[in-house]
Amino acid sequence: MRVLSNEDIDQLLTMPECIAVLEEMYLDYANGQALLVPRIDNLSPSTEADAYYAFKQMGGAWPRRKVQALRINSDIITHPVIAGKPRRVKQPRAGGRWVGLVFMFSSETGALIGIFPDGAMQRLRVGAANGIALRQMARPDARTLALIGSGWQAGGQLMAALASRPIDRVRVYSPRAESRQAFVAQAQQLHPGVGIVACASAEECVDGADVIMAATSSMVRVLQPTWLRPGVHISCIKSQEVDQELLDACDRVIVHVSAQPKQYDNIMPGTPNVTAEHNSGWWNKPGNRFADYADLPQVLAGKAQGRSSPNEITCFVNNVGIGLQFAAAGALVLDKARSRGLGHELPDDWFSETVHP
Amino acid sequence: MRVLSNEDIDQLLTMPECIAVLEEMYLDYANGQALLVPRIDNLSPSTEADAYYAFKQMGGAWPRRKVQALRINSDIITHPVIAGKPRRVKQPRAGGRWVGLVFMFSSETGALIGIFPDGAMQRLRVGAANGIALRQMARPDARTLALIGSGWQAGGQLMAALASRPIDRVRVYSPRAESRQAFVAQAQQLHPGVGIVACASAEECVDGADVIMAATSSMVRVLQPTWLRPGVHISCIKSQEVDQELLDACDRVIVHVSAQPKQYDNIMPGTPNVTAEHNSGWWNKPGNRFADYADLPQVLAGKAQGRSSPNEITCFVNNVGIGLQFAAAGALVLDKARSRGLGHELPDDWFSETVHP
Repeated sequence: MRVLSNEDIDQLLTMPECIAVLEEMYLDYANGQALLVPRIDNLSPSTEADAYYAFKQMGGAWPRRKVQALRINSDIITHPVIAGKPRRVKQPRAGGRWVGLVFMFSSETGALIGIFPDGAMQRLRVGAANGIALRQMARPDARTLALIGSGWQAGGQLMAALASRPIDRVRVYSPRAESRQAFVAQAQQLHPGVGIVACASAEECVDGADVIMAATSSMVRVLQPTWLRPGVHISCIKSQEVDQELLDACDRVIVHVSAQPKQYDNIMPGTPNVTAEHNSGWWNKPGNRFADYADLPQVLAGKAQGRSSPNEITCFVNNVGIGLQFAAAGALVLDKARSRGLGHELPDDWFSETVHP
Repeated sequence: MRVLSNEDIDQLLTMPECIAVLEEMYLDYANGQALLVPRIDNLSPSTEADAYYAFKQMGGAWPRRKVQALRINSDIITHPVIAGKPRRVKQPRAGGRWVGLVFMFSSETGALIGIFPDGAMQRLRVGAANGIALRQMARPDARTLALIGSGWQAGGQLMAALASRPIDRVRVYSPRAESRQAFVAQAQQLHPGVGIVACASAEECVDGADVIMAATSSMVRVLQPTWLRPGVHISCIKSQEVDQELLDACDRVIVHVSAQPKQYDNIMPGTPNVTAEHNSGWWNKPGNRFADYADLPQVLAGKAQGRSSPNEITCFVNNVGIGLQFAAAGALVLDKARSRGLGHELPDDWFSETVHP
């Protein structure tokens, strides 16, 4: 049993590798050769008066690589009032740290084979999904990328775009000048061959771009219908960044995975501050067309169409993550960690037993 | 983060303690103060042709003790033909061992606080549930116990009965003479003040008994309607050991937990040998009265009646386990392990992170 860190995973998993293994998994999933474990969000009171405890679980089995993954998030959620508005904040109550973990099992032996934090892989798999969508939906000659957002996830989106299309010009916009400038400085170091500039407005950022990627934590739409030009491809990392009006203005919309949104909120009565934030998204409201959209695995399997003409306006909505992404990337990472001897190895006997109840 | 073994748990958790902490949890659960995480059985092909991989997950949050538990079983299931009949066998493919694990989280900090195998606790919590039922449903002066079964679970049932009623005579029956004699020899050593004898037939075993407890792995009814005498209390550890005819012959039936049977089988298409064994129980068939029965937490909370008269024939059906049992017993065990310094302590930083995706 191997325990890996986010640093190990950053070292072991490149964006092109993550894209390749996720493509293989999505194809299997589309063909009924992988099992999605439905996501359950278990919400109960925490010890602080207005806080709640969120235990999120998702997973998946991928027989080709003989793995079952279980990913959990164990978060204390508070609602401090910031700039006059209540904000949803995950508090780092575990000694100043957060708790998200992936448990990997062998479906050949049953053994627990690995545990690692979910953060590094989370960013790579979100980026990889959008990169795979880019390969299916953006014009092959796309060269200019507009990136809305300059946080941690934006870095993953940039890596995925550069791995998927001949992008050589990148413009970055986010509301705070210091943030976007710091992001650009770091991104330029990581990707020296690419021209990366910060923009003072979203309009300047997206003007003439071949691809527009949103990577924000916004709870309201950040991509605007007025930005859409023939041939553009747009994408987001959460459903809140788009809305039905925007999607209706696109020629083709593909979502990440259609099945997963049927998630289950398992809420203890009396849990504070929960009702307001759950199931309140526009995609849960009447009039949404989510059910009409094909998903990325279907496109990869040839069961749905990606871009069909140079002038089409295409949109990829990375609406929700799936545990199978961790199964796929986790299988790859554990193989590489084993061969390089990375991580902490613990006795297998600690995690198995001589009885079977 | 503490890793405990089955041996640690056997040392840390006594049957009376397990009964006490489960009673406290059931009461909270009945009053909406604990959250049950629904059980999901995820079934997919394993590597052997006729085998499948079963990844079972259940859990629960218990705010009073600030814990969330997640219990998983990761099993390779084969169907060898034994004595002319296909049998369902969990294969110890993890180096000759099985894999069932409990992960404990703090709902105050989010941290992973413990991992331990499920076996020792599994037996204690099954026994404790039946012991708690005995306290609510058997006659207070019950002295003679008939035990049907002489396996590992039978030992747990015996411990629970002795902790719950003034039992001083125990008769044990199981089909194989060597098994029941070996069980009696061991049980007599563990419980020197009690008269424990083996019986050559089930009828001899149950004749005149105040309490009849089944603890077998049988797939067909082992408790017979003809055995029921006024005032007797009967119980089982799985629904297959009883049937509707038997329950109809009782005056009062209580099940373990009503909500839990709504479990979800999540099956990958093409998984071999699955359909035949799932949802085939009599309790899934038309005409069953399962929905009519109150459950043990309701009895503890005074929302349903336990035994109401000395002559009543009562029956407790331990129909299904719940993850909250592991939350309750796990919280207790981890507290005791910490104060005694038992188990392997691992750095908390291995299981938390500086980012929150």
